[in-house]
Amino acid sequence: MGLWYDETYADKVRLSLKVSRTLHREQSDLQRIEIVDTEAMGRTLILDDVFMTSERDEHYYHEMLVHPALTTTPRIARVLIIGGGDGGTAREVLRHPEVERVDMVEIDGRVVEACKAHLPNFGAWDDPRLRVEIGDGVAYARDADVDPYDVVLLDGTDPVGPGEGLFDEAFYRGVRRLLTPHGTFALQSESPFLMRDVFLDIQATLGRIFGRVHPYFGPAPIYNAGPWSWTFASHEVDPMAIDSARARRAELTAKYYNADIHRASFAVPNDLR
Amino acid sequence: MGLWYDETYADKVRLSLKVSRTLHREQSDLQRIEIVDTEAMGRTLILDDVFMTSERDEHYYHEMLVHPALTTTPRIARVLIIGGGDGGTAREVLRHPEVERVDMVEIDGRVVEACKAHLPNFGAWDDPRLRVEIGDGVAYARDADVDPYDVVLLDGTDPVGPGEGLFDEAFYRGVRRLLTPHGTFALQSESPFLMRDVFLDIQATLGRIFGRVHPYFGPAPIYNAGPWSWTFASHEVDPMAIDSARARRAELTAKYYNADIHRASFAVPNDLR
Repeated sequence: MGLWYDETYADKVRLSLKVSRTLHREQSDLQRIEIVDTEAMGRTLILDDVFMTSERDEHYYHEMLVHPALTTTPRIARVLIIGGGDGGTAREVLRHPEVERVDMVEIDGRVVEACKAHLPNFGAWDDPRLRVEIGDGVAYARDADVDPYDVVLLDGTDPVGPGEGLFDEAFYRGVRRLLTPHGTFALQSESPFLMRDVFLDIQATLGRIFGRVHPYFGPAPIYNAGPWSWTFASHEVDPMAIDSARARRAELTAKYYNADIHRASFAVPNDLR
Repeated sequence: MGLWYDETYADKVRLSLKVSRTLHREQSDLQRIEIVDTEAMGRTLILDDVFMTSERDEHYYHEMLVHPALTTTPRIARVLIIGGGDGGTAREVLRHPEVERVDMVEIDGRVVEACKAHLPNFGAWDDPRLRVEIGDGVAYARDADVDPYDVVLLDGTDPVGPGEGLFDEAFYRGVRRLLTPHGTFALQSESPFLMRDVFLDIQATLGRIFGRVHPYFGPAPIYNAGPWSWTFASHEVDPMAIDSARARRAELTAKYYNADIHRASFAVPNDLR
């Protein structure tokens, strides 16, 4: 018994986590933000009733979004994160000393404030290389007048609510505009098991814009969707060309990622070939 | 709304599936057996309130239990399955024409009958190479007076209820007794995320009995436990020495398995090295 938080997907499957304490709850201009303590997953961020990330499982998602791109892109001085308000993606990016500047464009400043207060192990907020801008990532990709980035990471939500425009071809074209010719775009691309159509649509759309598009796979327990996917898109970067010094450095702190896992994650399941 | 089936793990995390129809429900001498139609996972087998397998996700589990051992063990004429009453493991084993005989020792004959009636796509029950014996796998491993097997596959439940003895060192020694010196033992070995201690204990126990012990990893959505694991144990078989003709044949029908996935699945997460 006790208090349980339920996330129901498409009225057919539901994940529930037992909650020991509610740490934060507010309605921002964009969404409902909750941070709770759960017995199974530790502190857990919930946006509009959807489990986003937790202390116990966030390493899978953040390490796999960040390190494949950061260990293979030739130059990684300038990195853009779109979304990523919990801070975990920035933390992993900033583990690489070659990174000189990280711009994070997060649409909801209240998420950043709540996570700074209640998920202190997620972020690297005090790193002087990090600059946080509260704004719309879609507009930023379309309009921002900035030097190009070596790596762009999309750390967004599902294609509903504030994250909706982050799955459009127009947005991906904006990302391409912001990248150097030798740059890499990495993004979460949903579950190929539970959301196969969305996964395939992301691959097809990116294929019209980038010369090389490679999905890769790994666990993301809190998404309750079987295998999770990310996608590595670029004009010319080979996701297997791992800089071994950078990979070894990532391995110093990583719980999931290492160079073997990196290579393995790009193996494509037989029904997705 | 509607009818939902809940599986709660350790009073802290719960997976619920919406049920459209109950096809079978009985209390056998050993356990409660239910087969239901679910919207998310298709027909689903439930034993003692735990989701065992479903039409939509069973391929991950069965292909990964079977094909790594069947594509690498030099000779695969004689195969023993302990458990496996739903039939999916036998079906995948029997895809290999080099297999001459499969003995399945399943403790609960009522599971076999229920699955034959309601999960017809799981089994290959009419294959003349398959012999089903209803009995205790632990006693069989300890006492059976049979020619040795080339491959032994353990397709059991969690370490509670009828499956309890299948996690003991004594049982693993019985399996070794039944194997040829060039044989392979493959088994499901729980979630390294949600049941890390059980996973590590299985590795340590097998390491006292077999010369080579290699865990491998993949999705198993219905177990709601993040990454799942299997373990490949032998005296001398190299799990990377894939017979490419056998792998290509498995790929003809596999939804998840292929030779790339096989190799990739043996990459070990950083915190389990």
